[in-house]
Amino acid sequence: MPHSHWVLCLHGGAGVIGRDQPAARIAAYREGLAAALRAGANVLSAGGAALDAAMAAVRSMEENPLFNAGKGAVFDASGGHELDAAVMDGSTLSCGAVAGVRTIRSPIVAARAVMERTPHVLLAGTGADDWARDQGLETVPNNWFDDEFRRAQWLKAKEAARVQLDHADDGAKGTVGAVALDSSGVLAAATSTGGMTNKMSGRVGDTPLIGAGTYADNRTCAVSCTGTGEQFIRHAAAHGVHARMLWGGMSLKAACNDLVHRVLKPGDGGLIAVGQDGSYVMEYNSPGMFRGAADSRGAFMTAIWDD
Amino acid sequence: MPHSHWVLCLHGGAGVIGRDQPAARIAAYREGLAAALRAGANVLSAGGAALDAAMAAVRSMEENPLFNAGKGAVFDASGGHELDAAVMDGSTLSCGAVAGVRTIRSPIVAARAVMERTPHVLLAGTGADDWARDQGLETVPNNWFDDEFRRAQWLKAKEAARVQLDHADDGAKGTVGAVALDSSGVLAAATSTGGMTNKMSGRVGDTPLIGAGTYADNRTCAVSCTGTGEQFIRHAAAHGVHARMLWGGMSLKAACNDLVHRVLKPGDGGLIAVGQDGSYVMEYNSPGMFRGAADSRGAFMTAIWDD
Repeated sequence: MPHSHWVLCLHGGAGVIGRDQPAARIAAYREGLAAALRAGANVLSAGGAALDAAMAAVRSMEENPLFNAGKGAVFDASGGHELDAAVMDGSTLSCGAVAGVRTIRSPIVAARAVMERTPHVLLAGTGADDWARDQGLETVPNNWFDDEFRRAQWLKAKEAARVQLDHADDGAKGTVGAVALDSSGVLAAATSTGGMTNKMSGRVGDTPLIGAGTYADNRTCAVSCTGTGEQFIRHAAAHGVHARMLWGGMSLKAACNDLVHRVLKPGDGGLIAVGQDGSYVMEYNSPGMFRGAADSRGAFMTAIWDD
Repeated sequence: MPHSHWVLCLHGGAGVIGRDQPAARIAAYREGLAAALRAGANVLSAGGAALDAAMAAVRSMEENPLFNAGKGAVFDASGGHELDAAVMDGSTLSCGAVAGVRTIRSPIVAARAVMERTPHVLLAGTGADDWARDQGLETVPNNWFDDEFRRAQWLKAKEAARVQLDHADDGAKGTVGAVALDSSGVLAAATSTGGMTNKMSGRVGDTPLIGAGTYADNRTCAVSCTGTGEQFIRHAAAHGVHARMLWGGMSLKAACNDLVHRVLKPGDGGLIAVGQDGSYVMEYNSPGMFRGAADSRGAFMTAIWDD
């Protein structure tokens, strides 16, 4: 692979809307994915860094209320929002994350700030919110994240006393993420989420946990996951793809297939991954996964279901 | 290995006291390690479960103010205590953890409760404290964890504006942990910590992160880490030992050596691990590591430095 080649993949969650939804709603999701893909691809085509590209794509989905991250994050059991995010740079293994934050407008920007401005990897809760404010990051009242569609989802889940994971009206898997290979051969991953509808306050899923929902290592791949977080934590999913390649000699495709179809259970979710060789995988075991991919050879696609 | 064999290893942190300390202080540490080892070994020799044994050992060190977990946890930057813990059962990959809790007397008991009573793996912050109280777990005021030696350490660190990790007067690595193989062939790991002296509020280290500071899988090994948490997170250390064995075909010893001496940097800390075959490793790259091991063949040892 010539090092001028670049690749970007993103996901907007493994719990998808039904095919029977109004065409306008489906189109809105596709446009949201395409906008995020353009934001990241523009960085890469201009010779920018993998991490900047992955963040640009995630940032676009955080600001889009259709996706469960940033604005439009699902409601937790208390009727509020707790957000998680993580970033990792595969060239240095530098990483940063925030968990359970409530007032930081962009969790992914905060995750990167933790990586760049502290000796730490993970800051959680009010300590993280306070630190971000002190650092001059943009803060918002917690109800800024409110979205009426999400509120209706929550009220329905609350009535049924269910914990839900979603987009779909019946609750599915949220989270947004992006992985990139830049023209210098550097890999990076970024993931951001609002968690599960009606989740207990304090519950942390796989998204902000390096090795579970997010991982990048230039020797192998960059990975971002979405789905039932606990399953991705228990199997150290993102690091597991890297490990299968590095120590098991598997290809990116074989590593992702093994994890998604043999280790995880049907319905758990999916992941996106890009390899050092420019190969990429978007694999899931749910009814679909909002996703998209673009590369320096002109590829530019978005998809929701098997289609 | 006959399945009647059992093994227990524990650590009390990779930052150790100097050899020039008073004999009485050294003896107190050795007795603390021996008491914890007896607590866990008694469970295993009676045919008990690996997770119960690992928890008994950790519980003993949590209640001993000499160790940086539970009573005697270090002070954070705000002059309080935030505690983290995780458990994992290698037979089912069931796991549970708490992070940044302030009022739960035993973080390791809370971690196990998360595993057994919720669909989640990790609960953090006030949400975790509130949940534990609702569940009837024993709570204490945050200053119950105070210890005057720790307070003096903190005031010294604060004056020097340092973040410290420790036991040693000059700051070193805290955390306690235990790994066990029981007579049924089940592996388990448990880790608990008070974090780093003068740490930022909200900083979460490797201890409560499954795959970073704690991991267990019956196919390979159980691992508990101690040291500079961020390094263990970035390398997914505990899962990394498992991965080197499962996909790389390395022995437990080779896997631990590779991680501790080739990947981590001198001074980062160490880990304890027990394999499915009954082998065990207690490896570190710091000046020492409080540690101990016992097995069904009568072994019973504790150590602090290379001795």
